Amino acid sequence: MGGDHAPGVNVQGALWARSELGVNLTLVGDEHLIRKELGKNGKLNNSIRIHHCSQMVAMDELPLKALRHRKDVSIMVAFDLARRGNVDAVVSAGNSGATVGAAVLTLGRLKGVERPALAGIFPGAKGNVVLIDVGANVDTKPRQLFEFGIMGDIFTRSLLNIDNPKVGILNIGQEGSKGNEQVRIAHELFKKGPFNFVGNVEGRDIFSGDVQVIVSDGFVGNVALKLSEGMAETIGVMFEREISRSLISRLGFWLSRRAFEHFKRNLDYAEHGGALLLGVKGVGIICHGDSSPKAIKNAIRTAIDFVNNHVKERLEEGLAAFQTKGNER
Amino acid sequence: MGGDHAPGVNVQGALWARSELGVNLTLVGDEHLIRKELGKNGKLNNSIRIHHCSQMVAMDELPLKALRHRKDVSIMVAFDLARRGNVDAVVSAGNSGATVGAAVLTLGRLKGVERPALAGIFPGAKGNVVLIDVGANVDTKPRQLFEFGIMGDIFTRSLLNIDNPKVGILNIGQEGSKGNEQVRIAHELFKKGPFNFVGNVEGRDIFSGDVQVIVSDGFVGNVALKLSEGMAETIGVMFEREISRSLISRLGFWLSRRAFEHFKRNLDYAEHGGALLLGVKGVGIICHGDSSPKAIKNAIRTAIDFVNNHVKERLEEGLAAFQTKGNER
Repeated sequence: MGGDHAPGVNVQGALWARSELGVNLTLVGDEHLIRKELGKNGKLNNSIRIHHCSQMVAMDELPLKALRHRKDVSIMVAFDLARRGNVDAVVSAGNSGATVGAAVLTLGRLKGVERPALAGIFPGAKGNVVLIDVGANVDTKPRQLFEFGIMGDIFTRSLLNIDNPKVGILNIGQEGSKGNEQVRIAHELFKKGPFNFVGNVEGRDIFSGDVQVIVSDGFVGNVALKLSEGMAETIGVMFEREISRSLISRLGFWLSRRAFEHFKRNLDYAEHGGALLLGVKGVGIICHGDSSPKAIKNAIRTAIDFVNNHVKERLEEGLAAFQTKGNER
Repeated sequence: MGGDHAPGVNVQGALWARSELGVNLTLVGDEHLIRKELGKNGKLNNSIRIHHCSQMVAMDELPLKALRHRKDVSIMVAFDLARRGNVDAVVSAGNSGATVGAAVLTLGRLKGVERPALAGIFPGAKGNVVLIDVGANVDTKPRQLFEFGIMGDIFTRSLLNIDNPKVGILNIGQEGSKGNEQVRIAHELFKKGPFNFVGNVEGRDIFSGDVQVIVSDGFVGNVALKLSEGMAETIGVMFEREISRSLISRLGFWLSRRAFEHFKRNLDYAEHGGALLLGVKGVGIICHGDSSPKAIKNAIRTAIDFVNNHVKERLEEGLAAFQTKGNER
């Protein structure tokens, strides 16, 4: 039920995921509305079920207020199905605060995690870059940033299959003395971390790919994520404007269109399909509110990878291993 | 003397500015090194002078420490020339902390300004966007963000000739309740501001151009600035990689190359020539450490515009007008 074009886009993405990925899906929400969308697009069968619920959280609501005062909210019901083992993962394009809140309230946090965080995957020049947190938390404490570092490292190893990823703190200069109080204290903690800490990195490194895991407060990470989306869009608009100015340019563009398509796909956030919630006892993927059916489908693919690569279990093991080394708080 | 390729690039940029912009320049730094560069590139005459000094601040030094313990540092000497009225503006590609520090120590702050800030100009789809602060301050207080709003508004009116610009706070959601403590409190202050406050904006708005002035803490603003630079570079690299894959693509690219050049120029940060220091009793432009001669030249052009449009005086007037309305702290 979540997102700017729900449930139409969500149902369409689910149908594509069913046929392309062969996955079993449960659609959680208003059965009447969902059936209407399915009627347009294809029939129900064993691989797509509907779990009806009567309420939802709107995009602009205060998350915790909405979750506390309603009994039958779709995002809570979805995570409850996960808790009871009826589904392996939850994908939502809804209110991201409500999605994180529902996951924490329903599934609970992994041991050693004070604040679950959202990981986003960016297309760097030399390979993918994981930015954590892209918006689950603001006013994050240094110790919590440190937990993001541990989770980001394990996540990158297990989902992206990168050995010994380089971990950096997002800052405004490379020296440990740079930045605000939060990151200066975090820098000292990170030196003792169970990962390959390479020091501070800067905004440009999110797209360089020299470092594979970048840790930041969710406020900064969310600005970075949305800035990147906005810039990619603006570049597209400017580019089309230029190309359409002359016939020769249009011809040239037509000849190199395959290159453009491939290039665009590289930059397209829909390919990555949402941000991944790390630190809860389950799997949650949060899509952009403005997601296309393709983005929904790809988020479902990411959820499958998350489950098949045992990311949650490896997070649990990694966090536990670190704690038994005498680092218990 | 500042920047990664000093003084060569700085001298080259100055020579270009002299011939293209007809400006009188004073080069502040090691006379021997500067003369060597000038020998390569052209002769001294009345429109280019050298003011010798024996010391400088390196890119990786702690700014205040360096400024306090040396007597004859180029950036201090340059701002002292401005204070004495020998030059109208200072352009530096050096250590940005040292440049801000030297400006504040030498020129002093404008009345009503607790923290001078750096304004950056971004190429939005619907026109330029001013982001303030892009790195002069971290851990900014809400009241200081409010001052950035006043300065950003006046600056955008006077340098970019935009009437009644829309002013927004950079946040992670549009509602006033969103974000960290700093921006939530600032949101309430901004409602009473002497400018056209439109509420919170998000990372994507830095490139949309719907809002012309965006206020943020210098930590977030600096990450945004460097992220944009890095993304533009990465997009260029990915693009060339795609284009070079087939002969047809290369031919197509060749045919539409004019469009590409124009497009690239739009995105090129060198065109904007640096960040503008607002809130000191003088004019200071801070270029990227990695600036090209073109970027240095354009920063000099920006400095000329700043002076000719009386931005400093209009800031002074605007800040004073606001304070006499009974808003004195």
